[in-house]
Amino acid sequence: MSVIKNYVAQHEQRMLDELFDLLRYPSVSADPKYKADVLKTADFVAKKLIEAGADNVEVCQTAGYPIVYGEKIIDANKPTVLVYGHYDVQPPDPLELWETPPFEPTIRDGKIFARGACDDKGQFYMHVKAFELMMQTDGLPCNIKFMIEGEEEVGSDNLGDFVKQNKNRLKADVILISDTAMISMEHPSLETGLRGLSYLEVEVTGPNRDLHSGVYGGAVANPATILAKMIASLHDENNRIAIPGFYDDVIDLSSAERDALNSAPYDDAEYKADLGVNELWGEKGYSTFERTGTRPTLEVNGIWGGYIGEGAKTVLPSKASAKISMRLVPNQGSAKITKLFTDYFLSIAPATVKVKVTPHHGGEPVVTPTDSIAYKAAQQAIAESFGKEPIPTRGGGSIPIVALFEAELGIKTVLMGFGLDSDNLHSPNEKYDIANYFKGIETIPLFFKHFADLSK
Amino acid sequence: MSVIKNYVAQHEQRMLDELFDLLRYPSVSADPKYKADVLKTADFVAKKLIEAGADNVEVCQTAGYPIVYGEKIIDANKPTVLVYGHYDVQPPDPLELWETPPFEPTIRDGKIFARGACDDKGQFYMHVKAFELMMQTDGLPCNIKFMIEGEEEVGSDNLGDFVKQNKNRLKADVILISDTAMISMEHPSLETGLRGLSYLEVEVTGPNRDLHSGVYGGAVANPATILAKMIASLHDENNRIAIPGFYDDVIDLSSAERDALNSAPYDDAEYKADLGVNELWGEKGYSTFERTGTRPTLEVNGIWGGYIGEGAKTVLPSKASAKISMRLVPNQGSAKITKLFTDYFLSIAPATVKVKVTPHHGGEPVVTPTDSIAYKAAQQAIAESFGKEPIPTRGGGSIPIVALFEAELGIKTVLMGFGLDSDNLHSPNEKYDIANYFKGIETIPLFFKHFADLSK
Repeated sequence: MSVIKNYVAQHEQRMLDELFDLLRYPSVSADPKYKADVLKTADFVAKKLIEAGADNVEVCQTAGYPIVYGEKIIDANKPTVLVYGHYDVQPPDPLELWETPPFEPTIRDGKIFARGACDDKGQFYMHVKAFELMMQTDGLPCNIKFMIEGEEEVGSDNLGDFVKQNKNRLKADVILISDTAMISMEHPSLETGLRGLSYLEVEVTGPNRDLHSGVYGGAVANPATILAKMIASLHDENNRIAIPGFYDDVIDLSSAERDALNSAPYDDAEYKADLGVNELWGEKGYSTFERTGTRPTLEVNGIWGGYIGEGAKTVLPSKASAKISMRLVPNQGSAKITKLFTDYFLSIAPATVKVKVTPHHGGEPVVTPTDSIAYKAAQQAIAESFGKEPIPTRGGGSIPIVALFEAELGIKTVLMGFGLDSDNLHSPNEKYDIANYFKGIETIPLFFKHFADLSK
Repeated sequence: MSVIKNYVAQHEQRMLDELFDLLRYPSVSADPKYKADVLKTADFVAKKLIEAGADNVEVCQTAGYPIVYGEKIIDANKPTVLVYGHYDVQPPDPLELWETPPFEPTIRDGKIFARGACDDKGQFYMHVKAFELMMQTDGLPCNIKFMIEGEEEVGSDNLGDFVKQNKNRLKADVILISDTAMISMEHPSLETGLRGLSYLEVEVTGPNRDLHSGVYGGAVANPATILAKMIASLHDENNRIAIPGFYDDVIDLSSAERDALNSAPYDDAEYKADLGVNELWGEKGYSTFERTGTRPTLEVNGIWGGYIGEGAKTVLPSKASAKISMRLVPNQGSAKITKLFTDYFLSIAPATVKVKVTPHHGGEPVVTPTDSIAYKAAQQAIAESFGKEPIPTRGGGSIPIVALFEAELGIKTVLMGFGLDSDNLHSPNEKYDIANYFKGIETIPLFFKHFADLSK
C-alpha cells in the first residue's frame, strides 16, 4: 500500500469529521443574517491550516468577508503552488426541498449531503488534508500557499484589491483550484476553460402603490406583465440572446475543437432523465456540451412581484423584479456585456413604466493552457491516481478569480476539480461523494510530486 | 337639525369606536393563519346586530367561514330590504408599505387608515348603525334582513349553498349593498354594473430541481423565462387579450351608453398623477372609464420563481408560478372564460416544460336595473343627502354574490357605495374618510324611507 493510501486509511474518520465540522457553519455570504457564521468559518479555516502545518497563517480583513492566507515555504528555489478555494456557500433556499438539514451534514449511500459539501468546502479542504498528508509523510516537494476567500458566491468583490496589495506574498508558479467537476470517476476530466459572468437585478415600477385589479385593471400598465414581455424579448426564436452586439466578441470554436468537446461521453436520454424533462432547450445549432461550455447564456435566476402568498389577492402590483445573469465565453467582457444588457433592457422599456437595472457582480471568462508544465503535472497525477488519462472539458460555471489572477499576478491556473455535475451545486440536497473527497486527497500530492519533477 | 343628523351627532364617537373595534380583527380569509380571528369577527358582528335591535341573529356555519344573519320584521305587508356585506378583508401584504399597522386603525387628516376600513367593514357597518338609528328614532319604514359573509375576498365559495338552502329566510324585495365607490363627495354616483371574475394560478415546471445556472444554463428550459414568454402572449400589440374566443360573448355598448359613461367627470392628468405614471395603458380604442368599467381585462396579480432573497444566487429554478385574474363584463361566463384561458395557456406551453393551471374562484358580471323602484329610492336618498343627483357609473370590481342572488333568489340589487377609488382597496394604507362613513349612515335611512314610500 502506498504511503499516501496508507496515511489516508489511518486518518479517514478524522478527515471526514473535520470536513463535517466545516460544513456545519452556515457561511452564506449572500445573506447578511449569516454574517457572524461566515466570520467564524474563516477562523476555523485558519485554525485548520495551522494544525496542518502552515506558517504565517492570517485571517486577512477586507472591505467584505476576510481572506484566509497560509503558507509553507520549504525552499525558495523550489516551485510554488498557490491553492485557491472559498469557504462561503450558496444560500440553502428552498429549504423545504432538503431531505436533511443543509447545515447538518448527513451521509446517505456514500454521499455527504450538505450545503457546500462540494462547492467548495469539500473540495478546498482536500487540499488542506493533502498538505497535512505531505507534511506528515514524505514532506512537501514544492512550496505551498493557501488563499481561501469568503465572497466567491457573491462575486469576490474584495479579492481584487487584496491581490493587488499582496502581489509579493502571492508570488507562485501556478494556481491550483478544485472548484469544478469531472465527468465521472470512470471518466476523469480536467476543465480547460470557464465561463464569465454578468449578474444584474431589474426592477419594473408601474403605479406608485399596489392597486385593486378590478378598479384599475385595464387602465394602467401592470409591471409584472411588462416585465414578462421584456424578459420574453431577451431571447429570439432560436433561443439566441437578442441583445444587439451580444455575440460580437464571441470566438467560434474550430470544428476540431468542437469534435474534441463532443467526443466526451454523453447520453442524451440519461441527461434528460436526470433532469426530469422531456425535451432540452437551448441555442439552436449547438450540442449540450457546447451550449453549457462554449456558448454564452442568459438565465432568469429569480422573479417576483405582487401577491405570492396563499390564496387569491386581486391586486395590480406596483413593482415586479427579476435577477438575471449571463454566462460569458472567452473574449467577451463582463463590463461590456453588463452595459449592452442595461442599454437594451432600458431601450425596450415602454413609457408606461419606470425601469431600473442594478449590476450585482461579474467575472471574466478564461481558457487555461493545456501545454503548460502544471497542466501536464495534473494530467499525470490523474492518470496515476485514476489509471486513465483525463479528458479535457469546458466548464459552464464561473470562477472570476481565475481571470483576475492571470491579469494581476500573471499566473496561470490549473482546474483540478473532483466534483460531479450531479452534486446539486446551488440546489437543495447538495452532496459530495466520500469516494471523490478521498480520491482528491490522494491525487493532490501526486500533482505536487509531478509538478516538482517537471519543473526541474 | 334633522332627527337623523341629530342622532348621529349625539352618537358620533361611539359609532367610530365600534368601527375601530371591528377593524382591529385581522379577518384575512385568504390566509389560514388568521382563521381564529376571522371566526371571532363573525361573533362580533352578531353581537353588534343584536345590540342594534335585530332578531333571530345567527352565526350560520358553512363549509368555510360562517355567514352572520339577522333581521327585523315589523310588518309582513311592508317591503323588505336585504342588506349584504362582508366582514373578511384582503391580506395586508406588503406590510412594510403601511404607514401605520393595518389592524390598528389610525386617523390621519379625517381618514381612517386600516385594512377593511372601506372594503367592506366600514361600509357594511354603516348599515348596522343606520339600522340602530332608525330603531332608536322614527322606527323602521321597511323590514330589514342582514347577511354578512366572511369569504367575499376568496370567492364566496359557500354562499351559494347557503342561499339555496335559505330561500325563504332570505325573501326580500331588494338587496342593498355598500361595497363599491362613488366618484367623489362632490359627484355622488351609483354603480349600475359590476365586472365578473375568473381567477387562476399557473405553475410552470422545468427541471426536477433547482440547478446551477452555470453548469446547466443553456441546456435546459428555464421555467421563469418560459412563464414570461407565456404571459407575454396573453395580450396582443393593442393590449387586447389574445385568448381565442375571449371576446365572443362581449356585448359592445351603444354609442349613447358610451357617451353617458364618458360624460362623468374625469381628469386624465389628475388620474395619472394620482398613480404616479407618465402614461396609462390598456385596450386600444377605449377610454379609461370604458376600460375599467365596460371592457374585460387580464391582470397578473402575482409572479414568483427562483431565488428572490437578498443578493445573488446563480440558480436555474425548477418552477415558476403566477396568479392571474380576468375581469369579465356582462354576458361573459366565468366558467367558460376559465376554460378558454386554461385551454389556451396549455396550448402555448412548449414541450420543454410541464404546465399546471389551477382555477381559484370566479364570479359572474352583472348589470343592475336603473328603472326599478329601488334604484329610484337610492337616487332620491342620495339627491336628498348630497343635494345632487347621482351619476350612473360602471364598476370595475366584482361582487360575485350579486349575480348569484339574482339567479337563486330572483332579487335585483342596488349598489349604493360610499367609498372612493382612492381608498387603496387591496393596497397598503387602505382608508375610509370619516365624512363618508357618517354620510352613509345618514343616507341609508333615507333610502329606506323612499323605498317604503315608492312601494306603496
